[in-house]
Amino acid sequence: MVQATTLPRNEAGITAAIGVLKQQFGERLQTGQAIREQHGHTTTWITNQAPDAVAFPTSTQEVAEIVKCCAEYGVPVIPFGTGTSLEGHVNAPAGGICVDMMRMDQILKVNAEDLDVVVQPGVTREQLNTYLRDQGLFFPIDPGANASLGGMVATRASGTNAVRYGTMKDNVVALEVVMADGEVIRTAQRAKKSSAGYDLTRLMVGSEGTLGLVTEITLRLQGIPEAIRSARCSFRTVDDACRAVMMTIQYGIPVARMELLDEMSVRAANNYSKLTLPETPLLLLEFHGSDAGVVEQSDMFASIAEEFGGFDVAATSTAEERNQLWQARHDMYWACLQIRPEAKGISTDVCVPISRLAECVGATQDKASELGLIAPIVGHVGDGNFHSLVLVDMDNPQERQKADDFIGWLNEMAISMDGTCTGEHGIGQGKRPYLQQELGAATRYMAAIKAALDPDNILNPGKILEI
Amino acid sequence: MVQATTLPRNEAGITAAIGVLKQQFGERLQTGQAIREQHGHTTTWITNQAPDAVAFPTSTQEVAEIVKCCAEYGVPVIPFGTGTSLEGHVNAPAGGICVDMMRMDQILKVNAEDLDVVVQPGVTREQLNTYLRDQGLFFPIDPGANASLGGMVATRASGTNAVRYGTMKDNVVALEVVMADGEVIRTAQRAKKSSAGYDLTRLMVGSEGTLGLVTEITLRLQGIPEAIRSARCSFRTVDDACRAVMMTIQYGIPVARMELLDEMSVRAANNYSKLTLPETPLLLLEFHGSDAGVVEQSDMFASIAEEFGGFDVAATSTAEERNQLWQARHDMYWACLQIRPEAKGISTDVCVPISRLAECVGATQDKASELGLIAPIVGHVGDGNFHSLVLVDMDNPQERQKADDFIGWLNEMAISMDGTCTGEHGIGQGKRPYLQQELGAATRYMAAIKAALDPDNILNPGKILEI
Repeated sequence: MVQATTLPRNEAGITAAIGVLKQQFGERLQTGQAIREQHGHTTTWITNQAPDAVAFPTSTQEVAEIVKCCAEYGVPVIPFGTGTSLEGHVNAPAGGICVDMMRMDQILKVNAEDLDVVVQPGVTREQLNTYLRDQGLFFPIDPGANASLGGMVATRASGTNAVRYGTMKDNVVALEVVMADGEVIRTAQRAKKSSAGYDLTRLMVGSEGTLGLVTEITLRLQGIPEAIRSARCSFRTVDDACRAVMMTIQYGIPVARMELLDEMSVRAANNYSKLTLPETPLLLLEFHGSDAGVVEQSDMFASIAEEFGGFDVAATSTAEERNQLWQARHDMYWACLQIRPEAKGISTDVCVPISRLAECVGATQDKASELGLIAPIVGHVGDGNFHSLVLVDMDNPQERQKADDFIGWLNEMAISMDGTCTGEHGIGQGKRPYLQQELGAATRYMAAIKAALDPDNILNPGKILEI
Repeated sequence: MVQATTLPRNEAGITAAIGVLKQQFGERLQTGQAIREQHGHTTTWITNQAPDAVAFPTSTQEVAEIVKCCAEYGVPVIPFGTGTSLEGHVNAPAGGICVDMMRMDQILKVNAEDLDVVVQPGVTREQLNTYLRDQGLFFPIDPGANASLGGMVATRASGTNAVRYGTMKDNVVALEVVMADGEVIRTAQRAKKSSAGYDLTRLMVGSEGTLGLVTEITLRLQGIPEAIRSARCSFRTVDDACRAVMMTIQYGIPVARMELLDEMSVRAANNYSKLTLPETPLLLLEFHGSDAGVVEQSDMFASIAEEFGGFDVAATSTAEERNQLWQARHDMYWACLQIRPEAKGISTDVCVPISRLAECVGATQDKASELGLIAPIVGHVGDGNFHSLVLVDMDNPQERQKADDFIGWLNEMAISMDGTCTGEHGIGQGKRPYLQQELGAATRYMAAIKAALDPDNILNPGKILEI
């Protein structure tokens, strides 16, 4: 686990490329150790593999020039956003040039009438939403971290709102991409739908920087709803909570968010966020619609919840109470880490058909308990996706092994349930063996596509596929 | 126009492959002229290019065997559904074996709790919806024709409900595909979302049989809404109608359908369906939701329509009146043909950002009129997509030339507006030059993907790309 594979380095090429790029970029090409290590770092447990240099381009053309230079010398190119990915996505196992996209942070054009926006990849989702607020618009995808939109494209991110608004695959209209040969392409026009050829947009979304570097993104926007209402409801068991989730989805209630916290997570939230929630499994919900519509939705949910023994139901349309609740949800990562401050948190990310959710969550809790692991669960359960955050003492090899076994067991169970090892974090370095298990023969054709678009394997090598 | 390009034929290979397949398939391999021509026929104006034989497999394994045989002899393989595509998608410009999928027509499994269903590609959308009705579920994508679901995957179909439920790209969860080498892959698991590697599902959706033959499809379903309400509203001008559409979208009213008929189309509908609609531009809408919700939505729309001079507004929640209205909409193709019974209808399919819709529709009407062409317009205007059905006397070369000029002019205008030459029909043979115009450099990488997945170019050659 932890120790990421190293790939052969092209020393001569790396030295030559750095020389050429240094000439062009000057202070915007950094080779200091601290900055390099920072660019190998992500919210992850996988060893840091720093790149050899970090470039800070400010335009598509500069990105294309970096890629052309690296193509010429056969040097890896690794795009970087905010460093909040979780599976070693920005590591440099063969060294190479990290391309930090964060100086490409312009919101280029809001097309309010078309409900879309064109941004550079270094724009973060919070930056975008702050900018849009006055126009009554918002971008719904919310992975928790204030990630860059380029990074969110790369990992096919989703998060709490996906149950209603979909994932990045559903919310990217078109991309500008620098390909492995330095050519700049647009994957689609700005029309809302299209049947014009292969869907390069969706091929790039989730490709983790291995097929091209995204330099411009056209995103779908939503109107800020007239009314937003949130609700919470406690349950006696995770099973009851999951069954309420299933029924809510089947009834077609258009919930905007539906999040599960298991007992251990609720305890952590109470401690960290100074709340007094009943320390049993909890569902947090949000409803978007008209004033009357959100009340109707939340009432429908309340009666479903009651059927499954839900209690302590509270609903509110006031912004303050709502924000308190969702702030607590967003702080869950930190709240859970506080359960065991000396430990590192390793997040799993399985997603299963919702009919298997109760069984999958229950088995996960039992397995963690059997192995003596502390692993609170939070999840985007409306999609069948949940995270078990394994809190591991990294200095204890036995415990690390147990965590590794647990993660493997969980991924395999999810796959056996027709689910996936990753609902939203991506494959990166960490989940490559599980991708093979999950999709088998299909990965051969993924490799063929990779070889066709990046024949010298310079774009973020060692990620997704075992090449 | 009309005359499709012919590609070089591999006579020896074709003869050999037919010999082998005849042995295996017996009566399920047909070579009679009538059946071959029927399988080159689509709802199109492009010349029929019949395949050399038509195979009728009944299982994935048989499809794989056909593909393996054709791969061995270097013979084209062309999948066929209901023959309702519009751009010469099933033509055989280099001859080869047509694979008629319509005997693979089983609904394999309804997962009601997960709101998904697994079907074979020969299931039609009406067959599926009839089957699902008792379970309170439906599949929303409705391209008008009773197309096969395999064909709808291939063309990335959409239709009247797409404004709310998206297109095929949004409603396919996973595919089983026979690749060019005969290998069978699954593109994804059944989980609702995933970040597991390249999105082969969406790469296959819209690939028109050029990257693989789809043999099993997992589709997302929807619960039949508690209430359905439809509405119609007449406008003085197309511009007014389009502005009402734009405002409705911006207000976030979750319309399930929003269709425009221009004046000429309304006249055709009155004649064909014995209606008495005001003969001015018309919007037809449908709202899905709770009893209260659909009334709220239709009231909101009515007040927007009023702002733009909408008149003769009528809304109804009774099934009979609603069905009459939508039947008329679905019959528009036939109704428009009746305007000029001796002519052939050629459907355009541009889709533009909604902010450009009024301008695009207006210019289209003006251009047709300037050229003396009869070309009524109907459209899925909530998505910015509309069809101008050019009624052409095919025996009049001058008129055919005019129609050709008109279609070229319209596609180019849409592209210049950041729109697409095809919102839902696909590229096929007919739109290949426009794909080049629309996406330029990107098509080179589409060709690279095609070459990687189908190196001998045996899968539906001569479609999408100029190869």
